[in-house]
Amino acid sequence: MVDLIVLGAGPAGYLAAERAAQAGFSVVCFEKKSVGGVCLNEGCIPSKTLLNSAKIYDYAKHDGQKYGVSTSEAALDHAFVIKRKDKVVRALVSGVETTLKKLKVEIVREDAKITGKSASGFNVAAGGQTWEAGRLLIATGSQAVVPPIPGVKEGLASGFVMTNREVFQLAELPHELVVIGGGVIGLELASYFNSADCHVTVVEMLEDIGGSLDKEVAALLRGNYEKKGITFHTGCKVTSLSANGVTFQEGGNSKTISADKVLLSVGRRPSIESLGLETLDVYTQCGAILTGESMQTNIPNVYAAGDVNGRSMLAHTAYREAEVSVNHMLGKPDRVNYNAIPGVIYTNPEVAFVGESEDSARQKGFSVKTVKLPMQYSGRYMAENEGGNGFCKVVYDKKNDRILGIHMVGNSASEIIYGAGMLIEMQLPLEKIKQFVFPHPTVSEIIREAIYQL
Amino acid sequence: MVDLIVLGAGPAGYLAAERAAQAGFSVVCFEKKSVGGVCLNEGCIPSKTLLNSAKIYDYAKHDGQKYGVSTSEAALDHAFVIKRKDKVVRALVSGVETTLKKLKVEIVREDAKITGKSASGFNVAAGGQTWEAGRLLIATGSQAVVPPIPGVKEGLASGFVMTNREVFQLAELPHELVVIGGGVIGLELASYFNSADCHVTVVEMLEDIGGSLDKEVAALLRGNYEKKGITFHTGCKVTSLSANGVTFQEGGNSKTISADKVLLSVGRRPSIESLGLETLDVYTQCGAILTGESMQTNIPNVYAAGDVNGRSMLAHTAYREAEVSVNHMLGKPDRVNYNAIPGVIYTNPEVAFVGESEDSARQKGFSVKTVKLPMQYSGRYMAENEGGNGFCKVVYDKKNDRILGIHMVGNSASEIIYGAGMLIEMQLPLEKIKQFVFPHPTVSEIIREAIYQL
Repeated sequence: MVDLIVLGAGPAGYLAAERAAQAGFSVVCFEKKSVGGVCLNEGCIPSKTLLNSAKIYDYAKHDGQKYGVSTSEAALDHAFVIKRKDKVVRALVSGVETTLKKLKVEIVREDAKITGKSASGFNVAAGGQTWEAGRLLIATGSQAVVPPIPGVKEGLASGFVMTNREVFQLAELPHELVVIGGGVIGLELASYFNSADCHVTVVEMLEDIGGSLDKEVAALLRGNYEKKGITFHTGCKVTSLSANGVTFQEGGNSKTISADKVLLSVGRRPSIESLGLETLDVYTQCGAILTGESMQTNIPNVYAAGDVNGRSMLAHTAYREAEVSVNHMLGKPDRVNYNAIPGVIYTNPEVAFVGESEDSARQKGFSVKTVKLPMQYSGRYMAENEGGNGFCKVVYDKKNDRILGIHMVGNSASEIIYGAGMLIEMQLPLEKIKQFVFPHPTVSEIIREAIYQL
Repeated sequence: MVDLIVLGAGPAGYLAAERAAQAGFSVVCFEKKSVGGVCLNEGCIPSKTLLNSAKIYDYAKHDGQKYGVSTSEAALDHAFVIKRKDKVVRALVSGVETTLKKLKVEIVREDAKITGKSASGFNVAAGGQTWEAGRLLIATGSQAVVPPIPGVKEGLASGFVMTNREVFQLAELPHELVVIGGGVIGLELASYFNSADCHVTVVEMLEDIGGSLDKEVAALLRGNYEKKGITFHTGCKVTSLSANGVTFQEGGNSKTISADKVLLSVGRRPSIESLGLETLDVYTQCGAILTGESMQTNIPNVYAAGDVNGRSMLAHTAYREAEVSVNHMLGKPDRVNYNAIPGVIYTNPEVAFVGESEDSARQKGFSVKTVKLPMQYSGRYMAENEGGNGFCKVVYDKKNDRILGIHMVGNSASEIIYGAGMLIEMQLPLEKIKQFVFPHPTVSEIIREAIYQL
């Protein structure tokens, strides 16, 4: 009998285990695959190592010339990049394992299944054994959606088609890569393979790339990618895959583009199968576990954090949800502010945003005012981004004098956006924000500059 | 007769002119040199363009190999770097000029002198003409200190010795550069010339580099620079310069190191000569104009903002002081929080800090607790900084539950530190900070991680 059983050791699972153990709970965590989940092993971290190599290679190939640096024979060793990625992942996984071990969290390397509930707690079975706990946290994450397109199943079996899992193990660069789905994962990987000299085509069903991105951001990003040589087919539904390539509908016509590899990145769905949710009658909705504002399910003492609850499907949301779950278990009131969760696309240029887009703010009936400033207002951006055309857009609620959203295109937006999230979370009035000192010269100053123009 | 006369069009001067004009003031601004001041023309912006080229060159030469990118014949075209710097500076200067013009600020390209005070206002003479204004803002900035070391005067005359002014016009790279003064300016330029394959030696009078830097930060930085090939002589007083090089005292012995160029960066002093301050009897102290918390001098309606008041001598402080001055003129209460002004050293690795260092916090009697985390806690840092040994140190006031200082070594600390400044300015308790969502994976997460370890 332990205080808490955690199903899954991804960002939500391992952090909840950590926080609960720090608070004095006895914790068992079940994870058949590698600790760290998709984020660490097959997602965020692998893609960042690849994109960093791509950026350095871009400079070595041609971008460096704009800054007075010339080279010859620049080459990217893809196999080395993958090997280095594995090394980084191993180091980080081992870091998480060490932390959990120090905190005496027991990690069981098995898939677990909820088998029932007794007067004393919940029962979980794994590897022929049974465990019992007073509380359950389900943090089993998500998996790539595999749509029922003819040829996909065969393609996955033969290795012609990859998801986020296979792509990070790819030994050799493809010549022609077709990316199905122009969301964040699709764009980041398109960006890497484009920099790595592959011919990359993105086919997206919606009219815009980047999912719920602000429309102006999506348009600028697309322009930047196209200039780098990525081809986009948006508003196009893929109808089949075959040895000839990818066939899709474009404006009523059927087109086929050749490919030697296809990346499938059309979305992710919560992993809720075989967990035994039905044993406890845990409510789900649209394939995700239904949760309250402190990540409680309908069953007292059963929680669901991270991708599995389908709320925002980002690693940093998972972290926060894990903490909120544990705080709820400890009787500390806490909740996730879903309005202040940043999103980042780590391509070159980077995109980062937090809060409402102009469209979503208008749809919600806010009294919207926006300001959009070219990044050239920042001296540091000018110093470091020759020819760059990024911008910063601030969405403001005139009536209540507070920032609703901040959207940035340009390096290093990814590292700046957390502070924008703080401004939104704190609901600060403009006059207060104007008192903050932003170091000069930095790209972060663009926020201050924009605030002054509201 | 105008509402406001501004002496100097550097960061404090041009921003005050801008804000005052936006508020409806008629403004005349005097500047004999280029608009933008030292920061834009001979300081912050030029050094950032150089350092960006240096970083790209570092990757092309050797660092890229750690990430799977190989090149041959990498070369840095210093003359091109300087030309590009000039282009960036011109664009930014022209941006400031355009803004001032739009706001109908009159820019007079002359040095101005205060000549007196009448019932209606203050008189200023420049280029044979006289102006009158209800208010004066003195924003004449600072200049490099030229110490009375034998040989310095002759060296400056011959071009052997450079200050921040001459160094950014240097046509050819020196073979052996000696940097006198290991403060921020000295370190940034030492870093550039080291990357550009010059042999660089830094001679610093104090025992530590980086001025008031946290001691652990200074030590780590020095280690990083030494590994890159910069030689340091600290605790050493320079006694003379000659064609043979630079002679200094080290542990009681006199040493001479050869140099074909010397950079003098031993500090800056406010530019208060020939302003006619005595006409109004404006108080000064240690060579700086004495100001109150809203930048008022002892004479009503006379203000001093930026380096000339000697308070913090940073461009972003100047901006804030300019705004506070104008707000005071407008009757809006405002003040600069000098505890929350970030500092940045833009070398590779970057250093950024805000608030108290561990030593200064203890000296001030705070109930200090610190936590120091290796940057390797950040997955993104791991992905992008092979072999990096940066850290983040948080100085915390246990008694009052608030952050006193945050100190970071590692890229992209420069873009992250503004948010740390916000945490300090807002005096947020730890429990509140824990609710902020930091995007994953970013280097900025190190702050969150450190907060959780307090």
